[in-house]
Amino acid sequence: MTMLHQRRNKTARKKAKGKGSKTSRNRARSTKHVYSFGDGGADGDRTLRNLLGGKGANLAEMCNLGLPVPPGFTISTEVCAAFTATGGEYPAALAKEVDAALAKLEASMDKGFGDPANPLLVSVRSGARVSMPGMMDTVLNLGLNDDTVRGLAERSGNERFAWDAYRRFVQMYADVVLEVKAAEGEHFDPFSSALEAVKKRRGVENDTELSADDLRGLVATFKKVVKARTGRAFPEDPIEQLWGAIGAVFGSWQNERAITYRQMSGIPSDWGTAVNVVAMVFGNMGPSSGTGVAFTRDPATGEKRFYGEYLMNAQGEDVVAGIRTPRAIEALEKSSPKAYRELLRIQKKLERHYRDMQDLEFTIEDGRLFMLQCRAGKRTGFAAVRIAVDMVRERLITKEEALLRVEPESLNQLLQPIFDPSELAKARTGGRILTKGLNAGPGAATGRIVLEARRAEEWVEKGEGPVVLVRIETSPEDIRGMQAAVGILTSRGGMTSHAALVARQMGKVCVAGAGELEIDYAKRRMKVGKKTLKEGDWISLDGSTGELFAGELATRPSEVTAALFGKGRKSKPKKGGVLDAYQQLMKWSDAVRRLGVRTNADQPDQCETAIGFGAEGIGLCRTEHMFFEGEKIDAVREMIMSDTTAERERALARLLPLQRKDFEGIFKAMGSRPVTIRTLDPPLHEFLPHDDKTVKALAKDMGVSPARLFAKIESLHELNPMLGHRGCRLGVTYPEITRMQARAIFEGACNVAKRTGVKPRPEIMIPLVGAKRELELQEKIVRDVAEEVFAKKKLRVPYLVGTMIELPRAALTAGEIAEHAEFFSFGTNDLTQTTFGISRDDAGKFIPQYVEDEIYAADPFASLDRSGVGRLMEIAVTDGRASRADIKLGICGEHGGDPSSIEFCENLGLDYVSCSPYRVPIARLAAAQAALNSK
Amino acid sequence: MTMLHQRRNKTARKKAKGKGSKTSRNRARSTKHVYSFGDGGADGDRTLRNLLGGKGANLAEMCNLGLPVPPGFTISTEVCAAFTATGGEYPAALAKEVDAALAKLEASMDKGFGDPANPLLVSVRSGARVSMPGMMDTVLNLGLNDDTVRGLAERSGNERFAWDAYRRFVQMYADVVLEVKAAEGEHFDPFSSALEAVKKRRGVENDTELSADDLRGLVATFKKVVKARTGRAFPEDPIEQLWGAIGAVFGSWQNERAITYRQMSGIPSDWGTAVNVVAMVFGNMGPSSGTGVAFTRDPATGEKRFYGEYLMNAQGEDVVAGIRTPRAIEALEKSSPKAYRELLRIQKKLERHYRDMQDLEFTIEDGRLFMLQCRAGKRTGFAAVRIAVDMVRERLITKEEALLRVEPESLNQLLQPIFDPSELAKARTGGRILTKGLNAGPGAATGRIVLEARRAEEWVEKGEGPVVLVRIETSPEDIRGMQAAVGILTSRGGMTSHAALVARQMGKVCVAGAGELEIDYAKRRMKVGKKTLKEGDWISLDGSTGELFAGELATRPSEVTAALFGKGRKSKPKKGGVLDAYQQLMKWSDAVRRLGVRTNADQPDQCETAIGFGAEGIGLCRTEHMFFEGEKIDAVREMIMSDTTAERERALARLLPLQRKDFEGIFKAMGSRPVTIRTLDPPLHEFLPHDDKTVKALAKDMGVSPARLFAKIESLHELNPMLGHRGCRLGVTYPEITRMQARAIFEGACNVAKRTGVKPRPEIMIPLVGAKRELELQEKIVRDVAEEVFAKKKLRVPYLVGTMIELPRAALTAGEIAEHAEFFSFGTNDLTQTTFGISRDDAGKFIPQYVEDEIYAADPFASLDRSGVGRLMEIAVTDGRASRADIKLGICGEHGGDPSSIEFCENLGLDYVSCSPYRVPIARLAAAQAALNSK
Repeated sequence: MTMLHQRRNKTARKKAKGKGSKTSRNRARSTKHVYSFGDGGADGDRTLRNLLGGKGANLAEMCNLGLPVPPGFTISTEVCAAFTATGGEYPAALAKEVDAALAKLEASMDKGFGDPANPLLVSVRSGARVSMPGMMDTVLNLGLNDDTVRGLAERSGNERFAWDAYRRFVQMYADVVLEVKAAEGEHFDPFSSALEAVKKRRGVENDTELSADDLRGLVATFKKVVKARTGRAFPEDPIEQLWGAIGAVFGSWQNERAITYRQMSGIPSDWGTAVNVVAMVFGNMGPSSGTGVAFTRDPATGEKRFYGEYLMNAQGEDVVAGIRTPRAIEALEKSSPKAYRELLRIQKKLERHYRDMQDLEFTIEDGRLFMLQCRAGKRTGFAAVRIAVDMVRERLITKEEALLRVEPESLNQLLQPIFDPSELAKARTGGRILTKGLNAGPGAATGRIVLEARRAEEWVEKGEGPVVLVRIETSPEDIRGMQAAVGILTSRGGMTSHAALVARQMGKVCVAGAGELEIDYAKRRMKVGKKTLKEGDWISLDGSTGELFAGELATRPSEVTAALFGKGRKSKPKKGGVLDAYQQLMKWSDAVRRLGVRTNADQPDQCETAIGFGAEGIGLCRTEHMFFEGEKIDAVREMIMSDTTAERERALARLLPLQRKDFEGIFKAMGSRPVTIRTLDPPLHEFLPHDDKTVKALAKDMGVSPARLFAKIESLHELNPMLGHRGCRLGVTYPEITRMQARAIFEGACNVAKRTGVKPRPEIMIPLVGAKRELELQEKIVRDVAEEVFAKKKLRVPYLVGTMIELPRAALTAGEIAEHAEFFSFGTNDLTQTTFGISRDDAGKFIPQYVEDEIYAADPFASLDRSGVGRLMEIAVTDGRASRADIKLGICGEHGGDPSSIEFCENLGLDYVSCSPYRVPIARLAAAQAALNSK
Repeated sequence: MTMLHQRRNKTARKKAKGKGSKTSRNRARSTKHVYSFGDGGADGDRTLRNLLGGKGANLAEMCNLGLPVPPGFTISTEVCAAFTATGGEYPAALAKEVDAALAKLEASMDKGFGDPANPLLVSVRSGARVSMPGMMDTVLNLGLNDDTVRGLAERSGNERFAWDAYRRFVQMYADVVLEVKAAEGEHFDPFSSALEAVKKRRGVENDTELSADDLRGLVATFKKVVKARTGRAFPEDPIEQLWGAIGAVFGSWQNERAITYRQMSGIPSDWGTAVNVVAMVFGNMGPSSGTGVAFTRDPATGEKRFYGEYLMNAQGEDVVAGIRTPRAIEALEKSSPKAYRELLRIQKKLERHYRDMQDLEFTIEDGRLFMLQCRAGKRTGFAAVRIAVDMVRERLITKEEALLRVEPESLNQLLQPIFDPSELAKARTGGRILTKGLNAGPGAATGRIVLEARRAEEWVEKGEGPVVLVRIETSPEDIRGMQAAVGILTSRGGMTSHAALVARQMGKVCVAGAGELEIDYAKRRMKVGKKTLKEGDWISLDGSTGELFAGELATRPSEVTAALFGKGRKSKPKKGGVLDAYQQLMKWSDAVRRLGVRTNADQPDQCETAIGFGAEGIGLCRTEHMFFEGEKIDAVREMIMSDTTAERERALARLLPLQRKDFEGIFKAMGSRPVTIRTLDPPLHEFLPHDDKTVKALAKDMGVSPARLFAKIESLHELNPMLGHRGCRLGVTYPEITRMQARAIFEGACNVAKRTGVKPRPEIMIPLVGAKRELELQEKIVRDVAEEVFAKKKLRVPYLVGTMIELPRAALTAGEIAEHAEFFSFGTNDLTQTTFGISRDDAGKFIPQYVEDEIYAADPFASLDRSGVGRLMEIAVTDGRASRADIKLGICGEHGGDPSSIEFCENLGLDYVSCSPYRVPIARLAAAQAALNSK
């Protein structure tokens, strides 16, 4: 279950709740349980989706449109609710209503249900408001028994067809209604086994080669199996069959898989499913019959062309089974020209009517076309963007509708490198899949396993890459190795672990927390189950699904990133392509959204990427990431090892020009856009090595005794580093660090202003403030340094001083803190950790279960927790504004790139969200949707 | 600075603010800056303490009472405020007012200021609202110069006396007003050096042996030094002298020591000091003169007897200097019978007037008594209790006043073992003090150093104790060693570290976080500075001050604990003793307080102690502490090592009877009092050893491979265990643990009910709840088990299910959580940690500086943070009550024993507080005070 999925379903739920007034009214009043359709009309229509389910509502709608739909009736979701509530009882009036609907259906079809001479056969299907795997799907050919099968044979003039239909019905009914499954120790269910036995006896390979007699024999065998396994005879009475199937559909609403799916998707259990009973039409009645599925536009690319496939003389399940290869829909023009022309007409009509791309199912019975289903078609991100934009250009929908049509997360597909789809499919079925972790950094990567960051760099330098860095967990020391790698894989840590955070910011593919991996650094190998992979072996990661594959898999950049950042990126995109559509959609988003969108970036190249993706500034520049490069880490370590303020200041003086250069690079890249720079945040021990060998080597380099270095590391050790001596607590204890950083920022800003003529706009952000006075002290240092630098440089740049709100106490005392803060930036990663009392790094042991058991509605580190963290944010916003009306408010936690959280930020009235560069487009679209939804 | 001190001063500040309306009114209107007193009347009185300072107000008050006070005048604190604000300027009218007051003083004394024939001499002293070390104290004999000294000699008929006075004046004035101090490289200030030189030259040992000529020579030498060091001549003009001294007093309000003291004590800098100018009277004018200090009751024991000491022919400083031994006050009856009788009369009058024990300073000049100061006398905890109770019995004060008179913290003295005071004083001055840590567990302990918990047990068993357990920090594994030791000493950790918490609960003496200790487990020794102490050496801890002494110091139990828990504890206390007074005070407290007082206890013996101290129930029984004993830890480890639920259940089945027995012991001890039992809270890795040797030994014991045990320990390792897999998260992941604990509780309760006929009242508390559903799941387990046990035992006991509120999210969603909670208990330790984002264990690196720099008003782990943590509590109380009106509310964090926090709990309307057994009496008194103050 991806977050995307979850979110989408939650949105669905919310919308359903929001717009459910009609249903509620129906519920309150409705005494009607059964809705008939057919003969060019219907009791219901598509507005009754909540009552009739998606399938039922659309069948009714198609009838109302005058389209050829086999007649039938829908038993409403309210009956399901009653059935569930009473433990299996139906409303008193139901039987009568079903009888009436059935009579109507018989009349319409001019057949009799259970009539041996001219039997009416029906399909029975479930159909909830939203498509739900896990529920009972379909029983076909219901109404057949030892008498009616003969009528069907006579009427169709095809005995084999009739017995094949009967064989299928008994098998299906026994499976899904009577639940006769493979017993313990059996490899197959008893029906498949019997079928195989007959085929073997006859020496044939395909079902189609069995004779009518073979099938008759099978039906008898199947019925014996049913009697033996259930203790009861297979029901011969069609009415009994029908009620059995209806009960099975309603009962399946409460089966384990359905419950699990609902919980994962946030679907309320009181929605219930409807039951659709539809007259059978047959695509397998001979060469002039057939069946197929189609889309009104290409669901992969979004291209405007009728797209689909079909099989003549086949039932729907044959298309799915893959025994015969279906043909492209265009060929139908030859196979069944009249039906094809009608289908073309209908698909156009349906798309125009629904104003969206449709997914259709049809059957041709003896040359006559029947529509079995229509619904909004699933599509790739590419197709979603292109279809939405095209439909606006075709004046089918408005710009606003187009914006609401595209799932923000799906933009990921447009931006990330991808595996070759056919190779990927082969790898999946070919047993190359190793395990699955968290899809922490989307995209596809393939490279050689390296287990140490330094080695990752070396291999790439020596041209022995590409490499995938594999670690139990990563730390800031690994940054350069992560940069060198094409992908990052960890066996521990969640969606917001260090690896995941940094990878997303770098735009690296990342699979995190693959718990089945056993990594052995010493032996330079890792095990997954019984497989062992050595350092140097090839591995492939799908960061969009979390899958891990052994060996190499070809990847390619997406069209959009190729265009935005590849060669010739300045050239205008081809009109009508996905790139053109993407850019159009982004333009519309920008016009609609109120929230600003910034990025979290620490390096000039990240800034450029983010600007390419439309970032309007930096919302979080983590200065410590800069500290790990080359000379800088030496100076940082020298500073940490200092025993006196004087020593520390000497080390900081060495660091100053290096850090200033960092900031100059960023200011140059960002021009006059605001750049929020956070002063040093992590505890100092993060900058020191921890393993014996490296410590000894470092001690030698630094010219101190290993004992002293070990002692320093020991003295800096913390039991709970997350809650330790970090953030502004460092700046308060060692004001000289803040002073150096402020100096580097302002000197860098002045230098760039002089060189380029464009004034940078630094916003200095003090982290982990929990008391007003902390900020007051740090603010004074920053402002004093600023004035000093401006005086010396004879130049001023505009700047702000503000704070992160990332501790509950900061939110609770925001009124006071705002006295010293020109802006608040909600650091919702840490705020979530402290509000919940959960360490992201350690949460892997219980959060997945918590989400599964619905203890948390969603992983609070992925989607902002509104009632806890959100309430603190509300307090901070209200009190902060009361104290300083024009305070600038933003968010820079990972939630800044999560659409649901962005919606909450819009409702709170924040000024901007900030997220990793590759999520900027997603945030722009999500912000636009939030603005539209809040109207 | 102790917390007690801080609190007291904060209360003072608050009261001052609260009752400051009169002062503010005075401020707004007052044009009067100088207040005269003398001749049986005064401009001011004691209600003007804010304006006149403590000393000035009391001098005025004594004059109004008609007592013999040398006349003088007070320059108000407002002048100090103006002086500070303007950087040293006085209000325009001041000079005139001072002139007038001086003239009045001259008239009253019939002497002239600067009159060579009959000179008026004055003392100049500072005097703020509260006594404040660090400010300029006193200049005596001001008004002397080369002319007036002669007049003084003549008038007194004692030339040596006059020159001695002059010598003292020049020395004092040069020191405190002109600030001529020892220069760099000098061991003594130049005046002391010159004095010593003369004494050496004269071959004498005491100042008193110097002649008038010697002194005259010294005055000349002193003046030369002043000229040389300051570049200016010593001021001869008495008026210049006076303004110099006034300026020095006002200036000293802003000196570094004074500022530091104010910050530590929470005294606002705008209070300012007053200046008192008082006519000199001389106790050193001959054998019929003298000086002394006295208390209206014994400040050590509280006994009702006039208590004090005096010296004839001496000035106040001689009493302090300790060269001559002062005599007990009773002897004054012989030395100066008239003065003694008057003093007796006055002390009675003053005590009755002020309705409190008074601290007096007096001088007898030639047989005539003068009162120089009176103020409420400082007293020990013993005295405070006894005096308060006695005064009620004497009908001097009401019971309510008595309750408000005793600092709750001071009760500690009555309950803890103490060092022999004279030995302690010797140890302090004799260089035996090693270092100072945090006074984490009050009392005195002396024993042999042991560096390992297991060895501590062994030594005590072998009779080689008493031992002091010394650890870098303690962990739950050390519990039995802690129990065996008489005291606990750690080099790391704060006031609420594991060591501190457990020690206080056990009533053990504890000094925590003595950072100067370097403990070397391997070499079995520790270093403090250059001293090395080996295991087995004797050491003494004063847990009330945090001091550490080398060697043995005799201790003894306090009278109260000896009486409560020693032999013959049933016998009625001696009427009038401290024990009687203590019990009386507690009785009054109980009658007045609204808050219930419970205790945090895990063992039957702790329960008995707590009941002895008046606990009304258990507010927190930590079940995990029970897990470390003998067989239990084996079963716990077996449970942790289990790979499957079935294995875990087997291990839990072994644990069940052991844990049931634990609960039976507690229920028996507590009778029908409520017992709040917290289900398992700490992360599982706390129960596994971490050092190589112990792990290997344990693996052998458990019959598993060391590799497997190491792997388990590694898999349980957490980066931030405080925020990890603990609390109810364990119970949610492993419901069988909660089930076992619930079973042990209810079976134990039923067994005890059957055996004793008294029904226990368990209250099952689920820890670390952050989401309603966590509690819902755990509640169901508890209630299901309860019903099952009750059915089997054919007996019900009353019980509640509730939760700790110890995470911000719990407070923020308390409305929902209350749907499943019959009670909330605020776990303010963890709530403070998460609200501030501070780990108690790691906070030692910055919290002390934070408190010193006033970033935090107080250590939030010692005194509840009202604006952050308190605001969350308010939210939880409001929302919890809205959801469940009769929800029971308590607090079980360490704050439950802190008087200021108890006051907050009273205001919040909680039902009870719970604290460690030895703090129960403190909490009872504090709760009574809170109830009185809230009226």
